[in-house]
Amino acid sequence: MDKNRIHEQYEMTDELHEECGVFGMYDFDGNDVTSTIYYGLFALQHRGQESCGIAVSDTIGPKGKVHSYKGMGLVNEVFTPEALDGMKGDIGIGHVRYSTAGSSTRENAQPLVLNYVKGTLALAHNGNLINAPELRRELEYTGAIFQTTIDSEVIAYHIARERLNCGSVEKAVARAMKKIKGAYSLVVMSPRKLIGARDPHGFKPLCIGKRENAYIIASETCALETVGAEFVRDVLPGEIVTITPDGIESDTSMCIPGNKEARCIFEYIYFARPDSHIDGISVYYSRIQAGRYLAMDHPVEADLVVGVPESGNAAALGYAMESGIPYGTAFVKNGYVGRTFIKPKQSNRESSVRVKLNVLAEAVKGKRVIMIDDSIVRGTTSDRIISMLKEAGATEVHVRISSPPFLYPCYFGTDIPDREQLIAYNRSVEDIRKILGADSLGYLGVDRLCGIVKSKPCCHGCFTGEYPMDPPECDIRGEYTR
Amino acid sequence: MDKNRIHEQYEMTDELHEECGVFGMYDFDGNDVTSTIYYGLFALQHRGQESCGIAVSDTIGPKGKVHSYKGMGLVNEVFTPEALDGMKGDIGIGHVRYSTAGSSTRENAQPLVLNYVKGTLALAHNGNLINAPELRRELEYTGAIFQTTIDSEVIAYHIARERLNCGSVEKAVARAMKKIKGAYSLVVMSPRKLIGARDPHGFKPLCIGKRENAYIIASETCALETVGAEFVRDVLPGEIVTITPDGIESDTSMCIPGNKEARCIFEYIYFARPDSHIDGISVYYSRIQAGRYLAMDHPVEADLVVGVPESGNAAALGYAMESGIPYGTAFVKNGYVGRTFIKPKQSNRESSVRVKLNVLAEAVKGKRVIMIDDSIVRGTTSDRIISMLKEAGATEVHVRISSPPFLYPCYFGTDIPDREQLIAYNRSVEDIRKILGADSLGYLGVDRLCGIVKSKPCCHGCFTGEYPMDPPECDIRGEYTR
Amino acid sequence: MDKNRIHEQYEMTDELHEECGVFGMYDFDGNDVTSTIYYGLFALQHRGQESCGIAVSDTIGPKGKVHSYKGMGLVNEVFTPEALDGMKGDIGIGHVRYSTAGSSTRENAQPLVLNYVKGTLALAHNGNLINAPELRRELEYTGAIFQTTIDSEVIAYHIARERLNCGSVEKAVARAMKKIKGAYSLVVMSPRKLIGARDPHGFKPLCIGKRENAYIIASETCALETVGAEFVRDVLPGEIVTITPDGIESDTSMCIPGNKEARCIFEYIYFARPDSHIDGISVYYSRIQAGRYLAMDHPVEADLVVGVPESGNAAALGYAMESGIPYGTAFVKNGYVGRTFIKPKQSNRESSVRVKLNVLAEAVKGKRVIMIDDSIVRGTTSDRIISMLKEAGATEVHVRISSPPFLYPCYFGTDIPDREQLIAYNRSVEDIRKILGADSLGYLGVDRLCGIVKSKPCCHGCFTGEYPMDPPECDIRGEYTR
Amino acid sequence: MDKNRIHEQYEMTDELHEECGVFGMYDFDGNDVTSTIYYGLFALQHRGQESCGIAVSDTIGPKGKVHSYKGMGLVNEVFTPEALDGMKGDIGIGHVRYSTAGSSTRENAQPLVLNYVKGTLALAHNGNLINAPELRRELEYTGAIFQTTIDSEVIAYHIARERLNCGSVEKAVARAMKKIKGAYSLVVMSPRKLIGARDPHGFKPLCIGKRENAYIIASETCALETVGAEFVRDVLPGEIVTITPDGIESDTSMCIPGNKEARCIFEYIYFARPDSHIDGISVYYSRIQAGRYLAMDHPVEADLVVGVPESGNAAALGYAMESGIPYGTAFVKNGYVGRTFIKPKQSNRESSVRVKLNVLAEAVKGKRVIMIDDSIVRGTTSDRIISMLKEAGATEVHVRISSPPFLYPCYFGTDIPDREQLIAYNRSVEDIRKILGADSLGYLGVDRLCGIVKSKPCCHGCFTGEYPMDPPECDIRGEYTR
Repeated sequence: MDKNRIHEQYEMTDELHEECGVFGMYDFDGNDVTSTIYYGLFALQHRGQESCGIAVSDTIGPKGKVHSYKGMGLVNEVFTPEALDGMKGDIGIGHVRYSTAGSSTRENAQPLVLNYVKGTLALAHNGNLINAPELRRELEYTGAIFQTTIDSEVIAYHIARERLNCGSVEKAVARAMKKIKGAYSLVVMSPRKLIGARDPHGFKPLCIGKRENAYIIASETCALETVGAEFVRDVLPGEIVTITPDGIESDTSMCIPGNKEARCIFEYIYFARPDSHIDGISVYYSRIQAGRYLAMDHPVEADLVVGVPESGNAAALGYAMESGIPYGTAFVKNGYVGRTFIKPKQSNRESSVRVKLNVLAEAVKGKRVIMIDDSIVRGTTSDRIISMLKEAGATEVHVRISSPPFLYPCYFGTDIPDREQLIAYNRSVEDIRKILGADSLGYLGVDRLCGIVKSKPCCHGCFTGEYPMDPPECDIRGEYTR
Repeated sequence: MDKNRIHEQYEMTDELHEECGVFGMYDFDGNDVTSTIYYGLFALQHRGQESCGIAVSDTIGPKGKVHSYKGMGLVNEVFTPEALDGMKGDIGIGHVRYSTAGSSTRENAQPLVLNYVKGTLALAHNGNLINAPELRRELEYTGAIFQTTIDSEVIAYHIARERLNCGSVEKAVARAMKKIKGAYSLVVMSPRKLIGARDPHGFKPLCIGKRENAYIIASETCALETVGAEFVRDVLPGEIVTITPDGIESDTSMCIPGNKEARCIFEYIYFARPDSHIDGISVYYSRIQAGRYLAMDHPVEADLVVGVPESGNAAALGYAMESGIPYGTAFVKNGYVGRTFIKPKQSNRESSVRVKLNVLAEAVKGKRVIMIDDSIVRGTTSDRIISMLKEAGATEVHVRISSPPFLYPCYFGTDIPDREQLIAYNRSVEDIRKILGADSLGYLGVDRLCGIVKSKPCCHGCFTGEYPMDPPECDIRGEYTR
Repeated sequence: MDKNRIHEQYEMTDELHEECGVFGMYDFDGNDVTSTIYYGLFALQHRGQESCGIAVSDTIGPKGKVHSYKGMGLVNEVFTPEALDGMKGDIGIGHVRYSTAGSSTRENAQPLVLNYVKGTLALAHNGNLINAPELRRELEYTGAIFQTTIDSEVIAYHIARERLNCGSVEKAVARAMKKIKGAYSLVVMSPRKLIGARDPHGFKPLCIGKRENAYIIASETCALETVGAEFVRDVLPGEIVTITPDGIESDTSMCIPGNKEARCIFEYIYFARPDSHIDGISVYYSRIQAGRYLAMDHPVEADLVVGVPESGNAAALGYAMESGIPYGTAFVKNGYVGRTFIKPKQSNRESSVRVKLNVLAEAVKGKRVIMIDDSIVRGTTSDRIISMLKEAGATEVHVRISSPPFLYPCYFGTDIPDREQLIAYNRSVEDIRKILGADSLGYLGVDRLCGIVKSKPCCHGCFTGEYPMDPPECDIRGEYTR
Repeated sequence: MDKNRIHEQYEMTDELHEECGVFGMYDFDGNDVTSTIYYGLFALQHRGQESCGIAVSDTIGPKGKVHSYKGMGLVNEVFTPEALDGMKGDIGIGHVRYSTAGSSTRENAQPLVLNYVKGTLALAHNGNLINAPELRRELEYTGAIFQTTIDSEVIAYHIARERLNCGSVEKAVARAMKKIKGAYSLVVMSPRKLIGARDPHGFKPLCIGKRENAYIIASETCALETVGAEFVRDVLPGEIVTITPDGIESDTSMCIPGNKEARCIFEYIYFARPDSHIDGISVYYSRIQAGRYLAMDHPVEADLVVGVPESGNAAALGYAMESGIPYGTAFVKNGYVGRTFIKPKQSNRESSVRVKLNVLAEAVKGKRVIMIDDSIVRGTTSDRIISMLKEAGATEVHVRISSPPFLYPCYFGTDIPDREQLIAYNRSVEDIRKILGADSLGYLGVDRLCGIVKSKPCCHGCFTGEYPMDPPECDIRGEYTR
């Protein structure tokens, strides 16, 4: 895997990245779950495109014999027919990854598969621990060695050690959860159990599905629909669910009062797929609603409302509904610009943005356009898109953003760049508007944002600096080295 | 390249395929054109995903020394940094391909690069000759050998032979055009000239662009915009343009009366990118207009108009505009399901359609939905999508198709399946509606379709069986073998 | 990497496999050692062809930042220019591997790179621990997790834990050596030290070299010559050498009395490269001498002495010298039959042996031939070669083997098949001769074998069942599972 | 395929290269011949390592449907299981290639597969035409186009054109042979015939084999043995053999008087595999004999005769036999240094020669060594090997070369470098000796060389400048461009 090329891709965009998606399945009829996990990971691919992996095990065959395969790249790049060949099991877990903690290497791909005192264990997780460095250090002082820089290894050590003192792997998971702090949604495969766990704040989503005589645990409900499973329920913040042929067992002893929960609001606004529901709230509806609020709070006279594809479209539709201004399409996105797009000896004239996105001049010529996007991070892409709209004949471009300005780091799994790179850092909205060259600019307010998921307390630290738990003192981003 | 996997992909979809896109460039300042051709092919990738290639030449260095590279796959798969390394030239042509005539092999990738009596020549073409078999046979009887099964080789032979009797390569192209019949848009690179030619009926688009001191010839205007070039004009049906440092020379001696022209109507409805203009008509506008006509001719009471992504969206917007029924989004498309998506040991539960497309239940629940698609070929995908809408809670699904029913073969480059596979063959609209499970079904009429591009005569043989020239007697599809 | 194809290869041959080779280097002038390690691994490729890896570190840059790359395949397959790009360090270790313990997977490739309480550590080892299962179990009972099935991980844990209680990594190595039992030659890289260690019995070779201001530790002296280094000395059985800019420090506290040492005799006879010296004895000379002894003990009247290439040639030369019978060449070996040779739809007529080896009929026709080979394991190849010689016109074929018959398992790193597969198991020499179709058959006696390296006590357990330490009770071969 | 890496390889060596090997087969029982061709090409791999290909056809199925696959690399690199999958036919031809005329590109890989007036034809050839440029030009003036720069395309055109005027493909081959001049051994596959042809001078070998009810035509007899076929006879210089189910037909009308024949002497000395026989003469015997002559003509007192592996070994054995001086082994060759060996950031200390070859100090220390090699081209490798021997303790190194000094170009298929690069050009033997640092130097005389194959007239133009036909005036090496 050429890391430069991966880098290239992200450089081209001004997008934030989710770090991971997880999928686990246990079929009590003994059917192979590998292909279903493969399809489930496809449906979660938007949550991580750097690496992926699957580990499956046969509960009927030799106890604990795990087949696993991991690699750098997309699900359909890594899982060639050769790679899938020979993988078979009635229980298994899978993972897609974009690295926030731990560098982008094959060693860091998940699931983590290991042997410990009770046999074989496999783990995959989504989220970011804020006390991982301290925990690593503590473990090292008792003789631990670390072969990766991912949090899963820290969690695995705690499970392995707690398992020595308690009677089951799920209890060991519960005890481990007492020590780890931060955001995590976890799937664990032991020789005869599939376990799902979600951190007490519920930062990251995790849900349960069922298909005939099989249970599934997945990051998002869209993965359940893709594999033809029905949605059972969300895993509660702080809950541990243990799936065995005897059914689902739930341990809610780690749960905290509902008003202390802190779902990542950005899952609703950007990360999750619009056809998913998180904790009972439709992601699509959330975005429509965000667009409606924008129309209420930042109205403007115009001829056309357009979204920046793909993620701005739903909010644009909401804005159009509320404002009565016609919704339209202003952009053509080149669907073939993949992860490994390279920029050969590029001259200045061929902007990366234009290769990915072109304006439908026909649609915007002579019109006052309201352009909706989900967020502005550095602003590097936005100003070019606005220019393109104007070059194509738009007489005015009014920018509306369905989230507040980014001002603070995220410690829980979102890859927000350093403050100096954030366009909103130390700048007024008017300053930003000028930089972008927009005719007007409006951000969604934090209250509105929280209002969208109002019954559910959310984490909005990246906008407000108010976090549901004390952030770590040291910088948690970057390599784990000494 | 695993042909099975390519096949797999197309099996999954009920889409028609364009066969090719071409891009040529000549920079009079001597700058390298390779990277611009690379970007241009990216913008034309929707016209062919099976193979691609670039050939460049240095007019300043040793005369006629051509660097070329071709391979199976997408532009970003074939043109790795290693492949691009060493390619350099101030004149060049490129090609993307989906095979309609000639099988899908590396040998058949274009551009075709050859030596003939006057040095080196490279050709790339889009379209389908209807008299290729006869021409091959004729050539063989004068001692020709054929190493590919593509029409370019037939055209190349004619140019090479005519060149012996006339003073320039462009004249040889003109003479060759007298012999070849059918659809073709052609770019030719000779040591010091870039030539573009379009068949007299103008089936396939071809246009000219300019960027500083360089000229470009491309299949679609979207490729010009992508590389930052300005649109100069379309190549006329029947015209040959010859680009040299002295400027553009035009030979219109092959042009036929305008009312005999026969543009492929499906370029407007489906093949071309919506941000392109073909012969002065916006593709996007054509689709909006098709949607408007559908609303006029097939009105229905409903709550929501949605398009089947991506190609149905513009017509859906047109329908919404005309009918006043709100436009919305009903589907989430998985952008990561690429060309090489495989189906491992798939059970029945995991439908390929659902992996690619999911319904936004939130958007359609309890609603009467008008679903717009650009065409129905076999109908295999449509019935599943309609089922998905209903399962998601749509109370009614009214299907509107922005083209007439397919009933006849295309001899000019579109890969229409055998009649027996066409859902409309020998069936009434009501029959089709029942098969699909739609609450109502309406097709765009042929007159309406032609009305969209009314000043421009078009070919609608696939709908009407009326072709602008006599179709060949034998079957032209399939391998060239004896 | 296609495991079936690897398997295919070994199936074709009746050869034993060494498990590993190691190479470490520390350049005190700060020059990059990566390319030298790469060349060194090339010279050790005969010791392992399944996987390889390099880890380097910059002692001058950020402490402990390790660059590592590992993969399945030969050194020149794994280390493409892209893989080597970016690897840089003045200290580093490398490894080539054929698996005897631990399955053949990417996870099990070495060096093992890890973080522990004192920073980063990298290990590579050659050999086989006989108490690894017990040690793993013990470690697990104190909370260890294992991500591979290789012995290096067990050793690493011990070093990491001992390091908590002692003042330096080399002391931790010494303490670890008190616990691990079996055969091992080890190179360890810590942020500022290169360490080499050899088990007290000295089963596997390990030597020290010097090139300008840099030190090297390698499995064989041939690797020193390949990189232009001079031989300094062998690492003593039981010795730990610690290389820092202050020089070489030696810890011989683990050494045992010389007469208890137990070099693997098969290193001399087969595994090592003939241009290497192990503990002062020339491998080439050992093989010549083995051939001489064969001539003394199993004389026969004949016209020609030939070796089975490559490893039988030196003994054949020795036999010829001693007997006075002319030495010649009887075989042509196809040097292009690589590791990934496949057998497509093979009919019986195309024997794998003949693809690899053909007889020079001209050389053997009408002659009585003495054919020397280094060993017979299953005998599957030998009988075909003998047939080929006879078909080519040899009137007699007398087989002489420069080692005794294999009768017992090896617990120390050689991949000897199950007894039932050994041709010598439960068979007399006369029985074997008949099976092979030879006119006479003579094996080298155990005393003769030990006589070759007489000043050095050796391990000959695979021939005699007498091991220098108690073999483990359980089967040590096969996966580490529970 | 990375051309730089291929280049790298050859740069490392001072070897000459054969250009090609051919293999054809027709099984009258209808069995698939693909795997046998694959094995046959393996046995001919020494004749070309740059590219290879196979074309097969089913005489029973649809007439003339050819499956072919070609690629850059070794037989086992190109013919992966995927590549072989689907190839099936009872008639077929294969080719391995090192380019002398025509550059090293995928386009130039053979067999050449084409359609012409009588259906499908496939050709593969070994050799070099001296009038190819004129023939190309002539063909172009009658409208031919060329897609490769290989001679096969010129031959194919002639066959295709002659076929229009005569009743069978073999007659067309005969007529084509009247026009083409130079060295060629040719296999041609038509829908129902396998044809072999050899140029009248017989420069390159070609032989016929039989296995059950199938016939084989191959470059060397070693390929027959490898696939278990029996040798039938050599194709005569100038002969065309046509194989059909009716048997072998022979056309000898193009044969010239035996004393005008001109076998390439270097096939015996270096190119061919020692286990092959060419025109009744054993290659192995020829080399033994060359060694004997060297001993007669250039005797010297010494302790040991050694060959430079692999090709010098047979002559060394001959020298030892004749002189009575013991034969021994002085070198260890690293068999893993493959075609794609790369030289990363190489320092001067790591010589490429030493990576490939090391000296057995034990064998040469204190000895006067006679070192036999087959040829010296540039001398770049020889001087290093001599130094290595001396460094290892050889007291004297006497070099004997089993061919005369290279002084002239080869026009018939051997890749001899420009005169300026030849060490013997404008230098006396004594001058060369000094450059190499040898204690004495002796070349085999031209008379001796011809004496080896005395009943067979041979071409020795590269040594004497006397060619069996007038060499072309222009430079025939290098690209075909204008």
